[in-house]
Amino acid sequence: MTSRILVKNLAAREDGPVTVSGWVETVRDQKKVQFVVLRDESGDVQLVHPRAAAPATEVVETSGDVPVGVSVTDDVAETISSLTLGSFVTVTGELKHDERVKLGGIEVKIDSLTVESYAHPELPIAADSALDKRLDYRFIDLRQKRNNLIFRIQTTLEHAWRTWWIDNGYIEVHTPTFMATPSESRAELFQLDYFDLGTAYLAQSPQHFKQMAQAAGLGKVFAITPVFRADPSFTSRHATEYTSVDAELSWIDSHDDVMAMQEQLLVAGLTAVEEKHGDEIREAFGIEVEVPAAPFPRIPLAEAHEIVEKRGYKVPREDGDLDPEGERQIAAYVKETYGHDFVFLTDYPLSIRPFYHMVDEQTGLTKSYDLIYNGVEITTGAQREHRLDVLEAQAVKKGLELEGLESYLDFFRYGIPPHGGFGMGLARVLMQLLGEQSIREVTYLFRGPTRLKP
Amino acid sequence: MTSRILVKNLAAREDGPVTVSGWVETVRDQKKVQFVVLRDESGDVQLVHPRAAAPATEVVETSGDVPVGVSVTDDVAETISSLTLGSFVTVTGELKHDERVKLGGIEVKIDSLTVESYAHPELPIAADSALDKRLDYRFIDLRQKRNNLIFRIQTTLEHAWRTWWIDNGYIEVHTPTFMATPSESRAELFQLDYFDLGTAYLAQSPQHFKQMAQAAGLGKVFAITPVFRADPSFTSRHATEYTSVDAELSWIDSHDDVMAMQEQLLVAGLTAVEEKHGDEIREAFGIEVEVPAAPFPRIPLAEAHEIVEKRGYKVPREDGDLDPEGERQIAAYVKETYGHDFVFLTDYPLSIRPFYHMVDEQTGLTKSYDLIYNGVEITTGAQREHRLDVLEAQAVKKGLELEGLESYLDFFRYGIPPHGGFGMGLARVLMQLLGEQSIREVTYLFRGPTRLKP
Repeated sequence: MTSRILVKNLAAREDGPVTVSGWVETVRDQKKVQFVVLRDESGDVQLVHPRAAAPATEVVETSGDVPVGVSVTDDVAETISSLTLGSFVTVTGELKHDERVKLGGIEVKIDSLTVESYAHPELPIAADSALDKRLDYRFIDLRQKRNNLIFRIQTTLEHAWRTWWIDNGYIEVHTPTFMATPSESRAELFQLDYFDLGTAYLAQSPQHFKQMAQAAGLGKVFAITPVFRADPSFTSRHATEYTSVDAELSWIDSHDDVMAMQEQLLVAGLTAVEEKHGDEIREAFGIEVEVPAAPFPRIPLAEAHEIVEKRGYKVPREDGDLDPEGERQIAAYVKETYGHDFVFLTDYPLSIRPFYHMVDEQTGLTKSYDLIYNGVEITTGAQREHRLDVLEAQAVKKGLELEGLESYLDFFRYGIPPHGGFGMGLARVLMQLLGEQSIREVTYLFRGPTRLKP
Repeated sequence: MTSRILVKNLAAREDGPVTVSGWVETVRDQKKVQFVVLRDESGDVQLVHPRAAAPATEVVETSGDVPVGVSVTDDVAETISSLTLGSFVTVTGELKHDERVKLGGIEVKIDSLTVESYAHPELPIAADSALDKRLDYRFIDLRQKRNNLIFRIQTTLEHAWRTWWIDNGYIEVHTPTFMATPSESRAELFQLDYFDLGTAYLAQSPQHFKQMAQAAGLGKVFAITPVFRADPSFTSRHATEYTSVDAELSWIDSHDDVMAMQEQLLVAGLTAVEEKHGDEIREAFGIEVEVPAAPFPRIPLAEAHEIVEKRGYKVPREDGDLDPEGERQIAAYVKETYGHDFVFLTDYPLSIRPFYHMVDEQTGLTKSYDLIYNGVEITTGAQREHRLDVLEAQAVKKGLELEGLESYLDFFRYGIPPHGGFGMGLARVLMQLLGEQSIREVTYLFRGPTRLKP
């Protein structure tokens, strides 16, 4: 390995020889002195090269998109003058602490500079380019410090979730993408030719396969997996392909047990994010990470409608569900009333839930919930109907043909415990955590109806 | 939550009241006493019900595939007689330690028994059914203790890998499945209609997107993701959809740096598996988990050919690669010579490597490797060519059209550091770790050219 030092670790070092590697953020090519700001994945540092004092130094150019006549020059100054923004370089020099340097109070005086790869002279985007343009060049866009931070936060969040699950006896499963039968609604499914077996569908959730784990006696499982939706949705909250964070567990009494698990999980995840990145998030996003207190507020859907209406908003949907503005309204109410960023909305009618949700005999409503985070739905969870006769009746009531569900219904024929779980959109959590306006900002490579590249 | 106690935790408890939940493995319905072996995800326990001594006890049947005339009976004995194998039940009773009980020296005297879900009277498979038949009913097959153990091992292994990576500054990325352009060989790609954008392809590896992370300055990344191969391969080592474990890192000097990382990663993973599951693996698989010593042996491919030939095996392939028997032979040599389960084969000619591998100027061979584990290839790794002009020349030399590669080549136009990485088949590692004969045994839900269900 190149014995480079991460930029973030320079400040703590004593003055002396160092090697740093990264890309060129800015060049100030002055007559007497040259300045380069070099960035790596951990931060920015100022490099300095006093022209007059520059000795003949070896400079090796290993690549180039820029026409280069000579591949080796002995002049550091000349090479610095040739640097295009975004070029990747390795620099060896003398680290010096100097309070006058605005950028972190340190600079590196260049002894030698190796250009590993020249960038094309014109970078096609800047930090303030339009989102869609930035996504065209996501590989440049991700060089922004805040974007780099987003994916370090994602890594921390997921790892904290996995650790919590594993500490609590959950098994991680890799549910398949290819399915022989459509899972819920044919209209939202991608399909393709699958050898001699006819059509395969791409899973729009790991639902079937994590329920299968319950019949298989695995007890408690989680899955973090890509899922696919073929409906042409263009909102800031939808993607054609996204990462779904799912859990399913046996021997629950109701959806209350699922909510109790999910809120512990979220507390563990946000605690880890706050501890590891709280300061960086404050600096880059101007946001204080709030670790929620458990239990989160719980409000039955019917009551939520009343509350929202009292606030002067009439939900225009006819089906009884909340719309996005309704979700923002109930979240605002909860924030004002309980000071909480999260709220579980519970007890949805079966008419707006999939057939496999369990109906509570007392209320006639499903044992299910949505979880709203800072005004946006991030999760649907439920106890599932595990009694085959009831499940079939509910499917028929929904107008589904049992024939198409055989592969799923098989899971219930040979014994299955009571169970439930939830699915959570990873990007939605990140979007709400960081106060972003679109999941496109917090998805590594967004895929939508009009975006399939890069 | 049901306040059930996991079976594995019973032995450590004092005699007294307990609740256990699981499924029925066996019933011995004798005249004077009834025995049930109940299994949950953690183990087996014997339940006992002395008929004569049985008081009238509440029994609730909540579901059933079996025709049931009466939904409530007051007779535990009658319900036990009705139990079908695989039915899920919750039992409350008295735990008693008794050395005479072969199954763990404990039993539970049943006070009440609730049937949560009756299994169909005929289970379609047994532990010794043919593999393909077992896979048809994977949700029953996974109830086997050794199968349950496989996925707990997988969970531990992956978590140890992720933890090692994260402790070493790696970022986890979710690379997309949908691609606008074919990545390597069109013949192996699934394709489908993608809105108005024409054809989308399913990624056969996260290769492009983890390299993109290097241009994006993320430094070190890993991805654990499903990938898709449309070639009709029927060997015990291939699947149509499988989980790929990938890493990619910047600022390497050569593939040596990638190997050094991978061997540390594998040591961390296997150490965790040995510590957490060593005893269970010995019991269920008759295998001692060997934590390898680093560095692993490294043998250039040409030398490997000589060694294999000296052992009396002539590789029949014309292209210079080893075949599976050749891999077994070199592994046997390494085991005999160095006592090691792993061997890196290095320095493959470009003719049998993808165009994006870097060629060493001295040797004319690629800076790449395969990793063989107990005789099976589990990984290909390499330093990538990051110099655009060289990369394009290599693509052309391979007969590829640059036009189809534009989206990939774009990553190299705006600066990119030297980098490399590897891809590793999760199921292959598990297969070799546990001495299994097929990845189908260690894949949660196998997908192959003739298998798309369940």
